[in-house]
Amino acid sequence: MAEMKNLENWKDMPIPAPRDDEYQDIAWGLKKCAAGQKFEPFLINRAKVGEMDVKVDMHYCGICHTDVHIGLNHLGGSMYPMVPGHELAGVVTEVGAKVTKVKVGDKVGIGCLCDACMDCGACKCGDEQYCEKGGWCHIYNDTKKYGHIGGNPDTQTFGGYSGSHVLHEHFIIKMPENLPLEQAAPLLCAGITMYDPMKHWGATKGDKKMCIGIIGVGGLGTMGIKMAAAMGHRVVAISQSPTKEAMAKEKGATAFVVSTDAASMKAEEAKCDLILNTVAAPHQAAHYLSLLAQGGTLVQLGVFAEPHQISQMPLIVQRKAVAGSLIGGIANTEEMLEFCSKHNILPDCQTVEANQIDWVWEQLSTSNKDGLRYVIDIKKSRENKDFTV
Amino acid sequence: MAEMKNLENWKDMPIPAPRDDEYQDIAWGLKKCAAGQKFEPFLINRAKVGEMDVKVDMHYCGICHTDVHIGLNHLGGSMYPMVPGHELAGVVTEVGAKVTKVKVGDKVGIGCLCDACMDCGACKCGDEQYCEKGGWCHIYNDTKKYGHIGGNPDTQTFGGYSGSHVLHEHFIIKMPENLPLEQAAPLLCAGITMYDPMKHWGATKGDKKMCIGIIGVGGLGTMGIKMAAAMGHRVVAISQSPTKEAMAKEKGATAFVVSTDAASMKAEEAKCDLILNTVAAPHQAAHYLSLLAQGGTLVQLGVFAEPHQISQMPLIVQRKAVAGSLIGGIANTEEMLEFCSKHNILPDCQTVEANQIDWVWEQLSTSNKDGLRYVIDIKKSRENKDFTV
Repeated sequence: MAEMKNLENWKDMPIPAPRDDEYQDIAWGLKKCAAGQKFEPFLINRAKVGEMDVKVDMHYCGICHTDVHIGLNHLGGSMYPMVPGHELAGVVTEVGAKVTKVKVGDKVGIGCLCDACMDCGACKCGDEQYCEKGGWCHIYNDTKKYGHIGGNPDTQTFGGYSGSHVLHEHFIIKMPENLPLEQAAPLLCAGITMYDPMKHWGATKGDKKMCIGIIGVGGLGTMGIKMAAAMGHRVVAISQSPTKEAMAKEKGATAFVVSTDAASMKAEEAKCDLILNTVAAPHQAAHYLSLLAQGGTLVQLGVFAEPHQISQMPLIVQRKAVAGSLIGGIANTEEMLEFCSKHNILPDCQTVEANQIDWVWEQLSTSNKDGLRYVIDIKKSRENKDFTV
Repeated sequence: MAEMKNLENWKDMPIPAPRDDEYQDIAWGLKKCAAGQKFEPFLINRAKVGEMDVKVDMHYCGICHTDVHIGLNHLGGSMYPMVPGHELAGVVTEVGAKVTKVKVGDKVGIGCLCDACMDCGACKCGDEQYCEKGGWCHIYNDTKKYGHIGGNPDTQTFGGYSGSHVLHEHFIIKMPENLPLEQAAPLLCAGITMYDPMKHWGATKGDKKMCIGIIGVGGLGTMGIKMAAAMGHRVVAISQSPTKEAMAKEKGATAFVVSTDAASMKAEEAKCDLILNTVAAPHQAAHYLSLLAQGGTLVQLGVFAEPHQISQMPLIVQRKAVAGSLIGGIANTEEMLEFCSKHNILPDCQTVEANQIDWVWEQLSTSNKDGLRYVIDIKKSRENKDFTV
């Protein structure tokens, strides 16, 4: 698979023996940060169900490009063993005594957000991902900082490349009945990452047809194209690769811009009210400012650390803005799933098994030429006795 | 006065003889871009009043820091002879046959905006400064590109360091009766530059008390502090100079941050919903992002060309934005004047005569330690026979 390179700055957090308030279940993860490290099956501990908790039997888990960044320690400080996965879809098998949100047998999802303070201004208005107390708690590679996750409080969080999960009902996402679980899973990250900024910057109000630019025609980008088109907006797909035009238009793009071609850029100059930039590789955001209409906003979505060179005069003379956005809160995630259900918007998925994760990460590290989201079939993976414990 | 340094890239546009549809009047300006150039009195041509036009007898004209940037050719391409001045206040002395907006004897103002297409989306919604057809027409150092300004169409626009002006009624700003003209003049640039972004980013709705940061405690900054305080918001003044704390608080700031002091910055971390940055000298905008609360916007207002180094992760993790804003439209300028009239907000002004402009520009080029706006008394200047023609 894609090689681990940042081998110095990582945390070794071995899994302790399960406590009385924990059970063990299968997971597929990375045991340490080392050259040649590959995915392995091993047992992790999950909390037994508390009075506010919901237990989910995992059916599918999407593989996101962010998993690769965090799993390969690109940003430094990753914790191992690591079990990635923040696009979880399954069925409720047990609920705590005080749970009212879901019941046994319900189809549900879990996304990036597994905990937050639930008390600050951001949490109270449904933006738990921007929790002001100490930031959100990510479903993997994070500490149990807010106390709503049961079991041993000193262990790291483990994600969805695993057999089951147990969380406070607030972070369990209700799934519309007609959404197939394997295709709904990627919506929990890719879908909400595109939907939430569209909602925040006015695209879901329905009172105004906008022109929305989407930079990058990969897994996130194609999802954004489908959503923006379903909202009735004009959609401009923007990519370095002319080869992606046909796919972008097939997904719903009205126009296609080759970002390295001056004439192609000029043709869509000052057209976009909102641009969602999905690029997670080195680039200069200022390159796209000319595509923004007066008053428009360029929203950066990708994990990418180096600074952009941004001059203020182009922002001033047409009141433009450069902003960022991070997934979305629980309520908006449920709203997004309803929207996708209503408009029959589903990602283009390829189902894989756990023993193919290394291969998928290699694909995501090079180029996602087909705009596919890869989804692990957890049930089927469990049946492969050569790759379980 | 402050020295001209960029002596190569400028346009020589001598003033032709007046046409039949023009009259001549006194102005004080810069005849060319040359070392040692100082302000001189000379005659310029103004259009005679057409059916939609209003003639204004100039009483006062504010001196803005931007005048210095454009007058000294800091950005290149300036046109000479130049008559600066975009904070004009006077009295109507003649109106065209079809004028309905004002009448002879009315107190009026003219700001930066002297023309726009009046037909695009931005113009129609009152944001003429963002005219989408070809940008706004600036009251000086611009071409008569939209045809609403009469007289010789091939001559440059001349600003308010002059005896009178004639413009289409749309660009004539109604002045509340109780505002003293000499103090109202600077509101037409400094006032609207601060008010318009406050309105755009929600500070004038009255439904929510915000925390507003103001970077730079000069002429613009003190104006912003007074307005934000009058709106009932918590105001954080931010400056490199600890010596400005007393003045900032006297103008209405609740808190004061010394931007070069880490502990002072930390004390206001994540507090500001909106920050208006008035700094027009080299700086790094990213330095102030830590002061923004979740969802906050940093708005750049100053003329300053070099790029900022901005990383996207701080924007993403708390949905922050970096934007720009340029003065404001005619309707919002009139609203701002009403607001200032109601709340008795006036800039701290020092009145000067035309023969002191060189000295004022020198003050503005170094440090505006008192947060003063300088205003030329045009009537008095005309009486000085040693400095007229």
